[in-house]
Amino acid sequence: MSDVRVAGTGLTSFGNTPERTGRDLFAEASSKAFEDSGVARDDVEGLLYGNFMGELSEHQGHQGPLMAEAAGIQAPATRYEAACASSGVAVRDAVKRIRNGEEDVILVGGAERMTNLGTAGATEALAIAADDLWEVRAGMTFPGAYALMAKAYFDEFGGSHEDLAHIAVKNHENALNNEKAQYQSAIDVDDVLDAPQVSSPLGLYDSCPISDGAAAVVLTSEDYAREHDLDAPVAITGTGQGGDRLALHDREHLARSPAAREAGLEAYDDAGVDAGAIDVAEVHDCFTIAEVLAIEALDLESVGEGITAAREGRTTADGETPINLSGGLKAKGHPVGATGASQIAEVSKLLAGDHPNSKYVADATTGIAHNAGGTVASATVHILEVSDR
Amino acid sequence: MSDVRVAGTGLTSFGNTPERTGRDLFAEASSKAFEDSGVARDDVEGLLYGNFMGELSEHQGHQGPLMAEAAGIQAPATRYEAACASSGVAVRDAVKRIRNGEEDVILVGGAERMTNLGTAGATEALAIAADDLWEVRAGMTFPGAYALMAKAYFDEFGGSHEDLAHIAVKNHENALNNEKAQYQSAIDVDDVLDAPQVSSPLGLYDSCPISDGAAAVVLTSEDYAREHDLDAPVAITGTGQGGDRLALHDREHLARSPAAREAGLEAYDDAGVDAGAIDVAEVHDCFTIAEVLAIEALDLESVGEGITAAREGRTTADGETPINLSGGLKAKGHPVGATGASQIAEVSKLLAGDHPNSKYVADATTGIAHNAGGTVASATVHILEVSDR
Repeated sequence: MSDVRVAGTGLTSFGNTPERTGRDLFAEASSKAFEDSGVARDDVEGLLYGNFMGELSEHQGHQGPLMAEAAGIQAPATRYEAACASSGVAVRDAVKRIRNGEEDVILVGGAERMTNLGTAGATEALAIAADDLWEVRAGMTFPGAYALMAKAYFDEFGGSHEDLAHIAVKNHENALNNEKAQYQSAIDVDDVLDAPQVSSPLGLYDSCPISDGAAAVVLTSEDYAREHDLDAPVAITGTGQGGDRLALHDREHLARSPAAREAGLEAYDDAGVDAGAIDVAEVHDCFTIAEVLAIEALDLESVGEGITAAREGRTTADGETPINLSGGLKAKGHPVGATGASQIAEVSKLLAGDHPNSKYVADATTGIAHNAGGTVASATVHILEVSDR
Repeated sequence: MSDVRVAGTGLTSFGNTPERTGRDLFAEASSKAFEDSGVARDDVEGLLYGNFMGELSEHQGHQGPLMAEAAGIQAPATRYEAACASSGVAVRDAVKRIRNGEEDVILVGGAERMTNLGTAGATEALAIAADDLWEVRAGMTFPGAYALMAKAYFDEFGGSHEDLAHIAVKNHENALNNEKAQYQSAIDVDDVLDAPQVSSPLGLYDSCPISDGAAAVVLTSEDYAREHDLDAPVAITGTGQGGDRLALHDREHLARSPAAREAGLEAYDDAGVDAGAIDVAEVHDCFTIAEVLAIEALDLESVGEGITAAREGRTTADGETPINLSGGLKAKGHPVGATGASQIAEVSKLLAGDHPNSKYVADATTGIAHNAGGTVASATVHILEVSDR
């Protein structure tokens, strides 16, 4: 089984660029990834591409071949869709293909154009990641769904909106150094508590923004990286995927994410590490409560204790296990099809010492990336390790 | 490398059922596939699911987890989208996963609900498989695109609408025995030539219908099939995928399908057979001209000669290599996300001797299935072989 190397990564700025098409965004991200990697486009044997709402925001399906052209490659291309975990699923498949010796060089990534729909339009488009017949038609949107999860968590374990606020404050703080982030502005707990309420208990600053952006990652086999003398010290050593019922009312618990747990256990086992080995994590904090559920599902915090992790400094930049040093979805932004691949890019840079926030994790050798779709009906988890830096 | 067995298949009727949801259709198809296979739902380790236009026709994305629930399984689920090749791509990935020993039992399939959009709405929805910026906004729809391809073919090689008409006649004839087919009615050449023109030279009977339907296939490793004493004589022995530029104007030729050729060459090589070994084929005849381009790309006919294959009886049921014994997309119907998986089901049944038209290919041992997306910007090809019957 071949190891899988992160040869290069490329991100656009995440933010509010409604005039840019998805293909424009992905052309930029993939171009940066090729430049970063030193890999020739002609060597790419496949594009695995994540996109969620292109049908609605750009009247464009069948984006695989389109994005191969945007990236300047000639290779079969496949689009994966798992809501906000779309490019996480693509990364997983790319890892498996390289490991199994099917291909040596794969371009994986994703893009999303969202802000052209406006906030209400994008919120409505995002809702198609939930069950249309039983949730969406009853008025459910994702802020409402995660608010239900937060309330269920508070009911079972305690905790408050103020606890959640510390997560938003932390992630904004982390994004200050990330020039690609949508928000590079500090906020404090009062800002979060005083912000307009979106769906009780969640307010505006508990919620990730609507974002445009793209992410691309060039993955290669270990043999290819060695033969081409690539500077690729980070490997993806573990991959996992989990699934759950789509609709919240079909779950046993609203305050658990078993799909993320399943994906995490598989990825840890695959890499031969456990949660104790994790030095840095990017998790899917589409809402503040989502970060709590994610770090508990990944065993980075015990169940019921994740709520205080940011407040008590365990997951801040100078904490034991920094979470979302990129700023997370909350402050970096969340162009949904790009997010999973962007997390791989962030963790890889952090481990390689090439990230503005690498200074907080100078001795880090092992990282984790957690990408979730819907109310975590889909989840992927990847473990990354640096061999030398 | 483990061989991959077709353990069971299930199809809904294809046709005009606008009241049925995608989940309803896939529940039926998957239930039939499990019944046909004798495989327990608990043994399924993954669902790979193809769907194209659910966002537009059902306001429903993130269909992986939804369809896992509809199928009654608990396993990670991924949705693949490659326009009309969506479930072909899913089949390919399932084959690779089983071969590589990752999983032993995978449910693969797809569904599409289309007729609820009406003919004009469905045609517009299908158009998102083309390049929105450069084709669709200029007024291009798929009948127009394939008409351009037909004209280019006629210009280069000769041929006439009457030649194409024989393809439609043949595929309607083949569907007479297929109780799942949308059209079980014979037509003659004059019917085709006298039908309303859609986009010159193509008329109504050169075009596949708008269809609702679902297909499901249970694939297992050879070891699993043996250990569970499954009746699964047919194996998928070759798989290939090809890609091309999305927009027609970026192609070197309009009368060639290099993506299908690439996929075919890879699949033949993978199975260790050549085109001469093929006894029966299901190809993607979304329009009559598409069947010509497909059989030429797969080397079942020489380039420039496929146009006369149906007219001269080489591809009819009693011909040398029967094409689309199911009725093809033309007469069986084309619920786009289901089509690739349905072709696997049809070829498997034909080879196993379980198809109403198996009598035409009583000695057949090797079949091929060709699934295409858009104007063949995506293509998958699979080779199936029967070991004993």
